[in-house]
Amino acid sequence: MYTIGIDVGGMSLVAGVVTREGKLLGKASLPTRQDTDPQLLADDLIAIAREACVKANVDTADIDAIGLGFPGSVDADTVIYCCNIPSLQEPVKLPAMMRKQWDVPIALENDANAAALGEAKVGSAKGCDDVLFITLGTGVGGGIVIGGKVYAGFNHLGGELGHMVIVYDGEPCGCGRKGCWESYASATALMRMTREAMEAYPDSRLWRQVKTLDGVSGRTAFDAMRDGDEIAKGVVLQYMEMLGCGLANMINILEPEVVCIGGGIANEGDALIVPLTAIVERESYNKTAKKAVIRTAALGNDAGVIGAALVAVG
Amino acid sequence: MYTIGIDVGGMSLVAGVVTREGKLLGKASLPTRQDTDPQLLADDLIAIAREACVKANVDTADIDAIGLGFPGSVDADTVIYCCNIPSLQEPVKLPAMMRKQWDVPIALENDANAAALGEAKVGSAKGCDDVLFITLGTGVGGGIVIGGKVYAGFNHLGGELGHMVIVYDGEPCGCGRKGCWESYASATALMRMTREAMEAYPDSRLWRQVKTLDGVSGRTAFDAMRDGDEIAKGVVLQYMEMLGCGLANMINILEPEVVCIGGGIANEGDALIVPLTAIVERESYNKTAKKAVIRTAALGNDAGVIGAALVAVG
Repeated sequence: MYTIGIDVGGMSLVAGVVTREGKLLGKASLPTRQDTDPQLLADDLIAIAREACVKANVDTADIDAIGLGFPGSVDADTVIYCCNIPSLQEPVKLPAMMRKQWDVPIALENDANAAALGEAKVGSAKGCDDVLFITLGTGVGGGIVIGGKVYAGFNHLGGELGHMVIVYDGEPCGCGRKGCWESYASATALMRMTREAMEAYPDSRLWRQVKTLDGVSGRTAFDAMRDGDEIAKGVVLQYMEMLGCGLANMINILEPEVVCIGGGIANEGDALIVPLTAIVERESYNKTAKKAVIRTAALGNDAGVIGAALVAVG
Repeated sequence: MYTIGIDVGGMSLVAGVVTREGKLLGKASLPTRQDTDPQLLADDLIAIAREACVKANVDTADIDAIGLGFPGSVDADTVIYCCNIPSLQEPVKLPAMMRKQWDVPIALENDANAAALGEAKVGSAKGCDDVLFITLGTGVGGGIVIGGKVYAGFNHLGGELGHMVIVYDGEPCGCGRKGCWESYASATALMRMTREAMEAYPDSRLWRQVKTLDGVSGRTAFDAMRDGDEIAKGVVLQYMEMLGCGLANMINILEPEVVCIGGGIANEGDALIVPLTAIVERESYNKTAKKAVIRTAALGNDAGVIGAALVAVG
């Protein structure tokens, strides 16, 4: 038997047929409709699920469950709110709508939680019971796996670790607080720091990477650092310090066996992981015993699909 | 059947006979020896355990397990390190030593974790699966209960939530970091803030509470606030903001059903809980769904003994 995982994003819907071992056999996708009718979303989800079976050459009768990951909040049978999806601005009982067309068990999860489970089951934390997954992108997202299962609090709204204040009264955050980790450790924050350095240092080799401030990405400072620019090196080190500060907080609190880092910034690989590990070691309360290991996430763009499929396995 | 819980402190050892429902039937205690020989500690622990049975009028044959809580780090069969107890500066297999005199299962736990379990099972979070316990004393200690069990990370060193930086590059902390929550939200921190206000405002009614700066306690600012002093009110509000900042962090991450607050500051009751709840509500990511409830811990001085006994029940 196989399960289908569907990564429901603001831009696209991606479905994949996944084995019990987390192997992806075939995928199908559609752009996410910018329409407020949830029935159209349910129809699209069923359509790509069926198409993924065709691509994977798997009979739909051999699918025993579907798991869905969302960029927002869910409970067992309802998608509560996804700010970037027009049809999910109000609570929607999506599994019930989908089961009218395909009567299999349908599980819901937050996308970062699903990715955390994927990394813990078949990714870079394979076989570990206690895993922290963080994603460094537009924001800082997170998923917590405890005892081999997603932990999201009594109301399934936990894991908002990007909204942990690390700089009291610091940079304003979209959540309304000031000084959240997300405001210092997201790719967005790194881009802000990069632009500030470029404005302050017109001679910096940062300007070799991009012509305009609008062209800055999460890679710009890393690339200029590799080009030998000291200003860029300073930006990267400051970013690492803020990222490491929040990560040491999380490790002091949760002591996961493995921390998996995903999102665009994770593509830097060892240029990120090696200095970050040193900062976290310096900042951690635990100086002596076995420590959390920091790794880049292994499942990449497929983490959402594979994670959602594994959520459905339960 | 009954269990014995022992609260192993830096000043005293307290043992109690506890029912399955968490009722304390009788206690015995001894001062903690300032001696480096762990055998003497094991002897004392067995002595007060037996004496507690006499006090409780319970036959030792009716005791099926002993649980011990320590102000330090432990694993399943070893006390690893307790900085305030001379005989526990090196790893000690205390259960094996004790079982030579009394052959019952002996469980070890960190004292804050034990207290967290006590509050979750029979205290102010009775019946809740996901509970956060924090204690505001010399430091900020914590225990996390998830799914009805103590969660302390893969290496049993988690729960060090006092060492979460909330003020980047802020007040130095004993752990080596700067700006830890403990440096702003402990009773020690409140006393520091109170002394600073007294030095800055010689006319403040804070001076009615205590004659000298040395006399300041965690109650001084609260008492002067009740006496109508605006300076004291400012101190208390600032303390509450810092306490609430870290607590909102913890709730955003873990979303426990109940947060139990213990330690000396918790004696302020509603004067603490009501404004703190308002601050946390303002700072929490979750504005709409069911929220964590903040309560004072119910077990008071007996939390360590009752919690340790419940750890032994498993």
